[in-house]
Amino acid sequence: MPYFDMASAAPLHPVAREALLAALDDGWADPARLYREGRRARLLLDAARQTAAEVVGCRPDELTFTPSGTAALHTGVAGAMAGRRRTGRHVVVSAVEHSAVLHAAERHDSTQVAVDRTGRLDPADLAAALRPDTALACVQSANHEVGTVQPVAEAAAMCRAAGVPLLVDAAQSLAWGPVAEGWSLLAGSAHKWGGPPGVGLLAVAKGTRFAPAHPADEREAGRSPGFPNLPAVVAAAASLRAVRAQASEEAVRLSALVDRIRARVPELVPDVEVVGHDRLRLPHLVTFSCLYVDGEALLTALDRAGFSVSSGSSCTSSTLTPSHVLRAMGVLSEGNVRVSLPPGTQSSEVEAFLAALPGVVSEVRAQLGAPSTPHPASPPEPEPEPAPDLVVDSLGKRCPIPVIELAKAITQVPVGAVVTVLSDDEAAALDIPAWCTMRTHTYLGPNPAPRGTAYRIRRAT
Amino acid sequence: MPYFDMASAAPLHPVAREALLAALDDGWADPARLYREGRRARLLLDAARQTAAEVVGCRPDELTFTPSGTAALHTGVAGAMAGRRRTGRHVVVSAVEHSAVLHAAERHDSTQVAVDRTGRLDPADLAAALRPDTALACVQSANHEVGTVQPVAEAAAMCRAAGVPLLVDAAQSLAWGPVAEGWSLLAGSAHKWGGPPGVGLLAVAKGTRFAPAHPADEREAGRSPGFPNLPAVVAAAASLRAVRAQASEEAVRLSALVDRIRARVPELVPDVEVVGHDRLRLPHLVTFSCLYVDGEALLTALDRAGFSVSSGSSCTSSTLTPSHVLRAMGVLSEGNVRVSLPPGTQSSEVEAFLAALPGVVSEVRAQLGAPSTPHPASPPEPEPEPAPDLVVDSLGKRCPIPVIELAKAITQVPVGAVVTVLSDDEAAALDIPAWCTMRTHTYLGPNPAPRGTAYRIRRAT
Repeated sequence: MPYFDMASAAPLHPVAREALLAALDDGWADPARLYREGRRARLLLDAARQTAAEVVGCRPDELTFTPSGTAALHTGVAGAMAGRRRTGRHVVVSAVEHSAVLHAAERHDSTQVAVDRTGRLDPADLAAALRPDTALACVQSANHEVGTVQPVAEAAAMCRAAGVPLLVDAAQSLAWGPVAEGWSLLAGSAHKWGGPPGVGLLAVAKGTRFAPAHPADEREAGRSPGFPNLPAVVAAAASLRAVRAQASEEAVRLSALVDRIRARVPELVPDVEVVGHDRLRLPHLVTFSCLYVDGEALLTALDRAGFSVSSGSSCTSSTLTPSHVLRAMGVLSEGNVRVSLPPGTQSSEVEAFLAALPGVVSEVRAQLGAPSTPHPASPPEPEPEPAPDLVVDSLGKRCPIPVIELAKAITQVPVGAVVTVLSDDEAAALDIPAWCTMRTHTYLGPNPAPRGTAYRIRRAT
Repeated sequence: MPYFDMASAAPLHPVAREALLAALDDGWADPARLYREGRRARLLLDAARQTAAEVVGCRPDELTFTPSGTAALHTGVAGAMAGRRRTGRHVVVSAVEHSAVLHAAERHDSTQVAVDRTGRLDPADLAAALRPDTALACVQSANHEVGTVQPVAEAAAMCRAAGVPLLVDAAQSLAWGPVAEGWSLLAGSAHKWGGPPGVGLLAVAKGTRFAPAHPADEREAGRSPGFPNLPAVVAAAASLRAVRAQASEEAVRLSALVDRIRARVPELVPDVEVVGHDRLRLPHLVTFSCLYVDGEALLTALDRAGFSVSSGSSCTSSTLTPSHVLRAMGVLSEGNVRVSLPPGTQSSEVEAFLAALPGVVSEVRAQLGAPSTPHPASPPEPEPEPAPDLVVDSLGKRCPIPVIELAKAITQVPVGAVVTVLSDDEAAALDIPAWCTMRTHTYLGPNPAPRGTAYRIRRAT
C-alpha cells in the first residue's frame, strides 16, 4: 500500500527509531542539571547539535532545536523582526511560502512577491519589493506543494545588497542537500526527513540581529523555550545525517520516477495539468490537477485503491479555499493531487499508481456528470438550438461543479457568444480562468454580482 | 544509584515507552489527512485526548496538546490575556509560580502576591490584588521547589467572585490527583509524570475567553501551532492514566519517606533549615538548606556519592541568583537541596541518602573553612580582644562565603556590638537575614554602600 505523501510526513527512518530508543534510556534527564543523568543528557544534546549543524552547514552555536518546523518559522520570523524593529516592521515573503511563514508575516507589515506559473520567484521581483523599512525577507528553498526550487542564492545576493536578512524555509529540501550560502536564518522540520515529530531546527547565522519575541527562557540560548525534547532531537540529528548520506543516489532514482509520472499522467488521463517546474524541482515530488474532479472524492478513491496522496484542492481544506500556492501560480486547483515519494519507493509502485489513476479519475468524473473530453480529432458536438448568450447559476455549488456546468453550457452557445457563470465558490476564481486557458476560450474576467461573482467567458472555438 | 529529581524530569514510565513504540509505527502520519495512515493517526490522537481529558477532569474539546509544559503556560497566559484585552492588561501571579509563568506575566502589567515562610499563598492576599483591570490570575497547584500545596479551591472562589479567570499550573501535581474545581485554564507537562518530553497539556474550560496570541494555525483547535507530536502525545496520555492509577498508594508510601527525611535531616546535620509546608505538601518532595555550604559543591559531592538531587542555590543557577521561590519565602538559600522521589523509591535508598548526607555536608563545610557549629550546651567561645564594631569586606565573594565570614566575625565582637558585612552577592540579601533568624542575632537591615550592600547585624547572644 504505497504511501506517497512524504512532503507531509515521513515514516520514521530506521536510524531515527534506533537513536530514539537509545536516547529514551540515556537522555530523559534535564541536560541543565549537574548530576550524572543530566551530564549524560547534555553530552547527547551537544552531539546532536554538532551533527545537525554539520549537515545544515553552520556552527553548532548557531543552531537551535525547536518543537516543530512551524515553531522554527514562527520563532525565526518573530525574532528577526524584533531584532530589527528599529529598521521597520516590513517583511517581504514569496506568495508561495508555507502558511506558517505567511501567518507569521501577517502580524507585521507584509508584502507578498508574486511567482510565475511554475511557482518560481524572480529574484528581481524580490529586490524590487525591498524597502528602507524592510526588516526581513523570507524565501523557501523549495515549494512544499509543487516542488519548485527557488533561486535562493540569487535572492540572498539581492537581500545582502539591500542589507536585509533572509530567512530560508528549508523544510522540504534539507533532506536532499545543503541550502545555498547567504541565508541569515534557516528553518527545518525533522518529520519531513524521517525524523520524529516534535523537532524543528532554527539556525541563526552569526551577525544576524535576533531578539527572542517569546517570554524569557534559558533553554536553547534563549531562542526556544521549554524543556528540550532530547530523545527526539537525538533521533532527528541521526536521521538527518543518514538520509543526507543516501540523498544523491536516491535523488537520481526518485527523480526518474517523477519524470515518468510527469510524462505519463497527461497521456493516460485527459484534461490534466501538471503543475510546478519540470526541471528546477525537488527530486521526489510532482503535482497535477484533473479537470472536472472533486479533490476529496479523488483522494478517497485513490485511498481505496491503496495510494496515500495529498491535495491542494479547496474541498480538501478546512477553509474550503484552494491552496494559496496553486492560487499564486494561477493554475487549475480542482482535482489536485500531490505525489511525494518516500526514499525507497519502487518503480513497480509508481507503475501501479499510473495503472490505477485513469480509472479512478474516470469514476469520479462519471459520478459528477462531467462532460466527456472532446477528442482533438473528432468534430465538435452538434449545437442544439444555440442561444446567443447564457447565464449559468452555480450559486451554492462547490468545486468542481461550477466548471463542469460551464463546460456543458459552452457547447450550447455559438462561437463568439458569452457564458456567464454565477458562483460563490472561491475555487471558481482560479479554476474558471485555468479552464479557459486549457480550452482556449477567452476569459473576460470576473464582475461583482448581487451574490457571489459573475465570471464571463467568450466561446472561442 | 538513586535519582531523586523527579520534580525536574522523570525517567520514562514503562507504559509510556510501550505506547510510544506502538505509536511510532501507527501514528507518524498527519492526522489531518484523509488517507488511511492519516485516519489511523487521527484515531490515536482522539483517543489520547479522551484519555488525558478524563484524567484532567475536563471535556476532550477543552484539552489541547502543546510542545511542552512551558509552551502550555506561555500559550495559556498569552491567550487568556488576549481574550480579555478589553478588560485590561493586569495579571496577578503568586510570587512562587514557575519562571515560565513569571516571565509570561512580565510581558503584561503584573502583580506578584507574596507567600508565607512555608511558600503558601493566602487567598485573601490574592483577592486583594485583583483589580477591575485584572484579566487573569495564575496560581500553581503545588510548588515545584518546596512542594507546598496551594489553596487552589479558595483561590478559584475568590477569582470567580471577582470575575477573573484563574490559570492553574498543575505541572507538579497532575500525577497525584485532580486539581480542585474552579480553574479556567490548567497546564501540565508530561515529562513530570513519566511521559516523554515534548508534550504539555493546556485545558481551557468552556466559557473562558481565549484568543490565540501566536500566528494563525489550524492545529489543536488553533491553540497550539505546529505538527502534533503524536507518538509522544499517545505515550503521555497512556502514562498519565497509569501513574494516576497508582497514585494514592504511592503517595502514602513516598509521603512516609519524605516525613522520614524531614525529621532525620535536622537531627543528622547541624544548621539545616527544612523549608516548605510540613503537611500541605506534595507527597514525594522535600527541600532543605544547609548553612555554610556551597550548593554546587554539595550537589557535586552528592552526585559522587550516587545521589542525583537538585538545588535552588544561587551558585547552581546560570544567573548566580538564588531561586525566586526561596527568596519569596525568605528562607535560607545556601546549601539548598531538593529531593523529589520517583515512584518506586525504596526505603533503603532514602536511608542510604540519610547515611551519606552528614559526611558530605561536613566535607563541603570543611573545604570552605566554615565555622564549627556551637553546641547549645557548650559555653560560648572565648572572645579574643573584642572590638566594639567590625566591618567584614566580602565584596567579590560568592555564597556561602559572606555568611561564613559573618559567622566568624560575630564571635569577635561583644554582645550588643554590630557587624557590617559588605557584599555584592545577591544571595547574601536572603541568607544573612535567614542566618540571623537561625542564630537569633538581630538583623538591622541592608544599607546602600559604594559597592554592593552593607548588611548590619547586632550580636544578641
